[in-house]
Amino acid sequence: MLVNGTSGNTISIRDRGLLYGDGVFRTLLARNGQVSFWQQHLKKLQQDCRVLAIACPDASLLTEELRVLLQQQPDALLKLIVTRGQGVRGYAPSHNSVVTHIWDIFSAPELSVENRTRGVQVRLCDLRLGTQPKLAGIKHLNRLESVLAAAEWQDTDIAEGLLLDEQGRVIEGTRSNVFALLNDVLVTPDLSRCGVAGVLRDWVIDWAQHNNMTVQVRDLSWAELQTADLIFLTNSVFGIWPVRQLAQRMWMDFTLTQRMCAALDTGNT
Amino acid sequence: MLVNGTSGNTISIRDRGLLYGDGVFRTLLARNGQVSFWQQHLKKLQQDCRVLAIACPDASLLTEELRVLLQQQPDALLKLIVTRGQGVRGYAPSHNSVVTHIWDIFSAPELSVENRTRGVQVRLCDLRLGTQPKLAGIKHLNRLESVLAAAEWQDTDIAEGLLLDEQGRVIEGTRSNVFALLNDVLVTPDLSRCGVAGVLRDWVIDWAQHNNMTVQVRDLSWAELQTADLIFLTNSVFGIWPVRQLAQRMWMDFTLTQRMCAALDTGNT
Repeated sequence: MLVNGTSGNTISIRDRGLLYGDGVFRTLLARNGQVSFWQQHLKKLQQDCRVLAIACPDASLLTEELRVLLQQQPDALLKLIVTRGQGVRGYAPSHNSVVTHIWDIFSAPELSVENRTRGVQVRLCDLRLGTQPKLAGIKHLNRLESVLAAAEWQDTDIAEGLLLDEQGRVIEGTRSNVFALLNDVLVTPDLSRCGVAGVLRDWVIDWAQHNNMTVQVRDLSWAELQTADLIFLTNSVFGIWPVRQLAQRMWMDFTLTQRMCAALDTGNT
Repeated sequence: MLVNGTSGNTISIRDRGLLYGDGVFRTLLARNGQVSFWQQHLKKLQQDCRVLAIACPDASLLTEELRVLLQQQPDALLKLIVTRGQGVRGYAPSHNSVVTHIWDIFSAPELSVENRTRGVQVRLCDLRLGTQPKLAGIKHLNRLESVLAAAEWQDTDIAEGLLLDEQGRVIEGTRSNVFALLNDVLVTPDLSRCGVAGVLRDWVIDWAQHNNMTVQVRDLSWAELQTADLIFLTNSVFGIWPVRQLAQRMWMDFTLTQRMCAALDTGNT
């Protein structure tokens, strides 16, 4: 673990990351010393920092720190957090605060081949996401909605929970983005009101367009989702999981996601 | 500063308070070794923890820690944070996580007599609060909306910013609750969709009822607010501030808030 470039595993109790969730993060998977989508993660980190007016650490610094960490542990799950750091007391950011950046490192998780090939069982969460256009799309540290949603079920057969907004629009999973195939059109929810736009969501949109599919980023109702010919979830750590069961429906044809997974595996990132 | 009862000023980078804002807090003002509204703060802390299913530390433990801190510094501003602590990676709370509780202590702020007596200038924030009934009223650590709102202005003549929700209902200030006197009825916004319900808000409601005023906790539009005969802000640290100027309107008669401030000062808490 590194805190501001120094080996350590603690931060100040006055860090605004703790006090207000005033920061952003990325979760990264490394295999053989290589992080999937590192450049894309870096770009999103910079974008998210910009929205919050947090001075993102230099890309070269982060890349070098990552390189050193991966020398020690080439297969790992990493978490990179950037907070606004400490400042004077109170909500208003102070102009002289020094950003905190944190690397945490874990063993690489065992990823389920079965989830990719046979699909997963998914539930609809009770919690409805609130809307906040000024924070929509950003992977920030205000994640209580995700916590409450993930706390709704214990059944380990259920791999993910889907979240709707207050108007009943499908937004995302608790830790994934959602795609639906509807009459040969690939639809993924518009995330301009709420939700987190992950790097694999962008990759899928690009892949589909390069493969001559029509892609629509738009509102998607719960009713419409259930009429889909295929639903799948994306997350840059677990990859692509087709949905086998959701509510009263079952799906079995995962040809499209198998093609995507094959493209992902061949390093088509 | 105390972290889990031990002198210290750091927490783990794996604490869910940092990772997800998964915790709650109180800000307390102490004078001569006495914290205003300690019992009320404690009750709200317990209530807020209950909503998030966080095991709040025992009242007797917190009260004893507070006593020891105030022996060293009888006049102080204190911050008490309770987080869900560390757990396994991921949003879902684990059942064996051990709660973290943190006391931070600052010099007691100089409180402006002028703000209490002559009133304050207030602005309307651009940011609209998102609604999330499952978190409404709670003083949790997901405070990015407050941060963004407080970052909207630098003019130190403006003491507070008012926040509306997406439907244009008045909800609160960035760090205060709002009351309006409308035809001799004291109105304060319903906080069942968003906002933080502070201890002084409860005190004002009680005081007004004991003084035979009609009190309504209900939706309050921005248009209606501007027709008020008196607007005031409450915060358990700064107390009660009447509004002198908001948008195109000015107010000068602060008789009611002067009576409330006098009642507050005589320890009528």
